[in-house]
Amino acid sequence: MVPFSDIDQAYQRIQHLIVKTPLLTSDRLNDKLGFRLFIKAEPLQRTGAFKFRGACNAILSLEDADQPVIAFSSGNHAQAVAFVARLTGRKATIIMPQDAPEAKIAATRDYGADVVLYDRYTESREAIGKEIAEQQNGALIKPYDHEAVIAGQGTIGIELTDQIKAQGLSPQAVFCCTGGGGLISGLAISLHHSHPELAIYAAEPHNFDDVRRSLEAGTIISNDPEARSLCDAIVTPCPGTITFPIMKAHLAGGVAVTDEEALQAMQTCWRYLKLVVEPGGAVAVAAALQQAKETPSHLAGQDVIAVATGGNVDDVIYQNALTMEGAF
Amino acid sequence: MVPFSDIDQAYQRIQHLIVKTPLLTSDRLNDKLGFRLFIKAEPLQRTGAFKFRGACNAILSLEDADQPVIAFSSGNHAQAVAFVARLTGRKATIIMPQDAPEAKIAATRDYGADVVLYDRYTESREAIGKEIAEQQNGALIKPYDHEAVIAGQGTIGIELTDQIKAQGLSPQAVFCCTGGGGLISGLAISLHHSHPELAIYAAEPHNFDDVRRSLEAGTIISNDPEARSLCDAIVTPCPGTITFPIMKAHLAGGVAVTDEEALQAMQTCWRYLKLVVEPGGAVAVAAALQQAKETPSHLAGQDVIAVATGGNVDDVIYQNALTMEGAF
Repeated sequence: MVPFSDIDQAYQRIQHLIVKTPLLTSDRLNDKLGFRLFIKAEPLQRTGAFKFRGACNAILSLEDADQPVIAFSSGNHAQAVAFVARLTGRKATIIMPQDAPEAKIAATRDYGADVVLYDRYTESREAIGKEIAEQQNGALIKPYDHEAVIAGQGTIGIELTDQIKAQGLSPQAVFCCTGGGGLISGLAISLHHSHPELAIYAAEPHNFDDVRRSLEAGTIISNDPEARSLCDAIVTPCPGTITFPIMKAHLAGGVAVTDEEALQAMQTCWRYLKLVVEPGGAVAVAAALQQAKETPSHLAGQDVIAVATGGNVDDVIYQNALTMEGAF
Repeated sequence: MVPFSDIDQAYQRIQHLIVKTPLLTSDRLNDKLGFRLFIKAEPLQRTGAFKFRGACNAILSLEDADQPVIAFSSGNHAQAVAFVARLTGRKATIIMPQDAPEAKIAATRDYGADVVLYDRYTESREAIGKEIAEQQNGALIKPYDHEAVIAGQGTIGIELTDQIKAQGLSPQAVFCCTGGGGLISGLAISLHHSHPELAIYAAEPHNFDDVRRSLEAGTIISNDPEARSLCDAIVTPCPGTITFPIMKAHLAGGVAVTDEEALQAMQTCWRYLKLVVEPGGAVAVAAALQQAKETPSHLAGQDVIAVATGGNVDDVIYQNALTMEGAF
């Protein structure tokens, strides 16, 4: 439903606004892993997460240049929509969970959006979003089940294709942090366009591994509504109805990591890559590190890519990550 | 003494080995500063600091392909020389102060070097280095008073010239962390080759502002040997005899920052840039932030560049940085 040409057009549309984020590696970490790990550093994207890409493409694709925009998000999509709205001179209203990280709520307000808080466990963000969109005659920019958003996120794959060639890599596996699946859907379409043989894996938090389980079952399975995770950026209820068929067609499977492994991966990114990553943004790196601890690792000797998706994190959680035992 | 052509040749020599580090900015931080701050992100360089550039150029310039190399360094030059030695199949012996950050000693050993520890306050690293170099018939790769090292560090200026053009910037001021002056000398020669009007400032720790004071006096002035600073990477005794005349010819002056301001700058880089920076590597950012607090700031409305030079830091110091009050 999202052809590669949509991603290519998205790239033409947003290329002047986005950062072509670097693909980082650490010689010293690679020695310890036994394979070469390349990290696509989306914390260095504008607003601190890949979400800026999808928000840019979706908002720049709207026909009415003054239409207000509305979004619901735990924080990264929120900041992205708020900032793109400001860049394009629109009003933005963002619906955020009360328990979103303070850093994300503060940043969204800094970008000039109206923030509406709701209770993640008792209220429906979809219902609130729909009501505000109707009141304002605004455009609801959904975080993942939205074709222009998926196409925007897919521009990471265009950059990666270019970087794989420029850096002379031969990747066999790609890990990508996955919530509702918007990013990995766009990424898989664009990467498989250039590298059809690549094994692409969804990396998810323990108890929020709905994509992994849905792929195994062949049908959409939801997470336990009682489940909790530190990885606020990607604790979505279930795969999207647009994203799931794409993921089913493209993904090799899923890997679940614990909160502890996500925190260890944050520490590893701090120590070796000098990159600040949030828990949900570190899950793909954590999945690759998990495989490195297998003996023998099936990744041994390979070039492996992990997409680090965001770096918007509160300091207390970051300090916990730095003091975790057992990190590389 | 180091013509631009040496830097250009250094770039041809090492370009395939170094990372072209990104020039990062934060829309949200810039709003708060009242000017646009662009950070050259050398923590993302191989070995986590710019020192890799100079070590590469100096070691690749040696005539004997098997000659052992010796270096003295508090840690970043150490890691760089150790790693370049490994890449080129040479033996490396590194003389490091006993009180160097553990992370730096561990990394230097990881890169395969022999590490010799000494007392920074009672022993002479120059004398120890000279003795080992004579024993091994090795090449001593000095950290800053060395023309091939200066030329290698100057490659940052070639990249910056390219990035200033590609990103459409009009910089008026550049701040650069300064110890013995190797980096800022190379940087100033190459940046003034493309942008002769640029005001380039040495950023130094309080009590180690020997470059600032030497520039004002017109002659080399040393720091108080009793002085102490958190900024281990740049606590050198005085400007170099090769670097001082270059700095005198090129620099607009110096700015001193406190340890507290360096820690605040580390926090600012963490929050807004998602970049891990060590105390000595954050001093240039701290200098720019110090100017932002002036009312009115003479940088208001400008494009300002700060070179963040390294990111090799122990976790306890990093946690202190995250909890500092008063940061942007």
